[in-house]
Amino acid sequence: MISKKMSNLVKNSSAIRAMFEEGRKMALEFGKENVYDYSLGNPSVPAPEGVNRAYKEVAGNPDSNYVHGYMLNQGFDEAREAIAKDLNARFPVAFDKNDIVMTVGAAGGMNVIMKTLLDPGDEVVVFAPYFGEYKNYVSNFDGVLVEVAPDTSTFQPDLKALEEKLTARTKIVIINTPNNPTGVVYSAETLTKLGQVLEEAQRKFGHPIYLLSDEPYRELVYDGAEVPFVTTFYRNTIVGYSYSKSLSMPGDRIGYLVIPREADDHDEIFAAAGVATRILGFVNAPSVAQLAITKCLNERVDVAIYDRNRKLLYEKLKEYGYECIMPQGAFYLFVKALEPDDKAFVAKAKAHRLLIVPGSTFGCAGYVRIAYCVDYAMIERSLPAFKALAEEYKK
Amino acid sequence: MISKKMSNLVKNSSAIRAMFEEGRKMALEFGKENVYDYSLGNPSVPAPEGVNRAYKEVAGNPDSNYVHGYMLNQGFDEAREAIAKDLNARFPVAFDKNDIVMTVGAAGGMNVIMKTLLDPGDEVVVFAPYFGEYKNYVSNFDGVLVEVAPDTSTFQPDLKALEEKLTARTKIVIINTPNNPTGVVYSAETLTKLGQVLEEAQRKFGHPIYLLSDEPYRELVYDGAEVPFVTTFYRNTIVGYSYSKSLSMPGDRIGYLVIPREADDHDEIFAAAGVATRILGFVNAPSVAQLAITKCLNERVDVAIYDRNRKLLYEKLKEYGYECIMPQGAFYLFVKALEPDDKAFVAKAKAHRLLIVPGSTFGCAGYVRIAYCVDYAMIERSLPAFKALAEEYKK
Repeated sequence: MISKKMSNLVKNSSAIRAMFEEGRKMALEFGKENVYDYSLGNPSVPAPEGVNRAYKEVAGNPDSNYVHGYMLNQGFDEAREAIAKDLNARFPVAFDKNDIVMTVGAAGGMNVIMKTLLDPGDEVVVFAPYFGEYKNYVSNFDGVLVEVAPDTSTFQPDLKALEEKLTARTKIVIINTPNNPTGVVYSAETLTKLGQVLEEAQRKFGHPIYLLSDEPYRELVYDGAEVPFVTTFYRNTIVGYSYSKSLSMPGDRIGYLVIPREADDHDEIFAAAGVATRILGFVNAPSVAQLAITKCLNERVDVAIYDRNRKLLYEKLKEYGYECIMPQGAFYLFVKALEPDDKAFVAKAKAHRLLIVPGSTFGCAGYVRIAYCVDYAMIERSLPAFKALAEEYKK
Repeated sequence: MISKKMSNLVKNSSAIRAMFEEGRKMALEFGKENVYDYSLGNPSVPAPEGVNRAYKEVAGNPDSNYVHGYMLNQGFDEAREAIAKDLNARFPVAFDKNDIVMTVGAAGGMNVIMKTLLDPGDEVVVFAPYFGEYKNYVSNFDGVLVEVAPDTSTFQPDLKALEEKLTARTKIVIINTPNNPTGVVYSAETLTKLGQVLEEAQRKFGHPIYLLSDEPYRELVYDGAEVPFVTTFYRNTIVGYSYSKSLSMPGDRIGYLVIPREADDHDEIFAAAGVATRILGFVNAPSVAQLAITKCLNERVDVAIYDRNRKLLYEKLKEYGYECIMPQGAFYLFVKALEPDDKAFVAKAKAHRLLIVPGSTFGCAGYVRIAYCVDYAMIERSLPAFKALAEEYKK
């Protein structure tokens, strides 16, 4: 007697999560050492010691009703102020606490902002390949997901194709940089052009189009790559951030939205985001986590560990004959499947006990995502499997 | 450019929350000591020391990826097992981990279960007076809220009136015991009859009707009152629990759903609740809070403190001529307004710097809710204001 809507959702449920659960079962059957689970973006690098120190400090605060009590639905003033100051120090921006809403991770923040902005039938544009959950977030509010086809030569957003997808019903355009699943970082040049296309569309259609920048991977970049701050390129940008990856705490569910004061209808959006946070059942981002991250905003996971993984896996996969671009950020390789049917390829990989995710989950068939936020030793152990899989296709 | 839906929600936003924010402003103007804020169910009794000890222990666990990582969307196995065992030890039930879903408080759990069960147009029945947020939770999923009028002589649910409200579209009936805002506890007799009415309706309409029992106040009872466990009266009961009140940690956002194995379509609901948790953006209940409460399931706030508040306020209000029933649980008094228009009464109370919530917020005009989860000293200071307010009506 679950709802019809839900019944369809369960059937088409996240291939990534299904793989994660499959991995747990296979580990029991074959032994944990013999299953190479590259399915989930579950950080393998431990949280910085500062995170646990901060939790202990917060738990030691004698003012229990402050630490564990309700606060404004948008979050503690102190947390929002600290984040605004931190962003102001690092980027050419000037936020204050009224531009920040604490959220239950980036997923919570994206749902809050979609609840805030979308009426049924409103369109949300995404660039393939994109995180498959966006589809569900949009459908939660009866929005319509509009896909821009991938440019598989660079995996940068195809802005010409975007122009053709913008309509009078476009309310939100989502970007995700550094990108899941490609690892691509959008350049300042790309963002400048994107801003121009959206400004032009706003003029044409006579209403704001919000650029929702999903940035959980902001701090995970390699080779000195820079991630420009998107609000400085386009006024109507809303940033969704999460500490899941930068502090290796995805289970804690803590992040924030930036609603810059220069965005159209800033005050209304800020107020509505608080109401949305409440009525969607979050009520507020977890209080202890809010106070804890306030104490360790400058901490970072050790990105060198992911970088080492990235280099080993990229180099070896290329050596075995796989095609893929070198990622500049996040912790994924987006690899061309060795046959056009990515799901069939994923099934063949599974026979080698390699768990990887089909690109069609990301709106980009013919590719697979490999999450390298895993132990280096697992990568080493898995290399013969990747090699054998490639050789299977050479026969 | 916020959505039309949201624009209406913001306009009609929670009177309780508005009052809470008003209280913060008035405290700045008149001094904190001179504002008597009875608006919000924000516990004043500190969390038991065990809660903070548990947080510190969890933060001290060297396995960072376990403590801060993803787990099944339904929550950690250990947390769900511990809760099942705890319930089995206290009530005549036999749950296991597959009957428990960890949630972001009770509000998160209720949204998850409504996402799981409701198709647009499905009906959700509530007994007035009821927590006003239920209306928003139901409308999040395009359900239709159906109110059963209050029996103001006892504030027990009117089961005759319920029978008339059940239709072929009824999917969920919500109860809340101990009740917000009346403090009433549903007796075993009431629950037995309620179960019979629902069984009969299931037969008549040929599909399950789920009884959603919202129980954040389960452990807050007085004078030795017993709160029967609802699943033992009606098979298709789903319990929504929160530690917000029993451990004074509403900001932490931690609770659970019980989906008993004997409920129709148990497995489907359990699986769908996991998917709903993920796609609504919760992803999972906060990991550190899940592990922390697992370590202090037997802790309780000191209910004697609320009991002392209850007795003082009840006795004095009766003395001043107010009418209200003596609450057996929770931390609210539901008092008859001294004029038919409860909102006008609330405005007059505010002139005495008394912040109380109109009963119409709870679907029960002519009454007001007074949340006595406050400092005893504040109650003492506020008594002359309650007296003066009553005298204003005697002139």
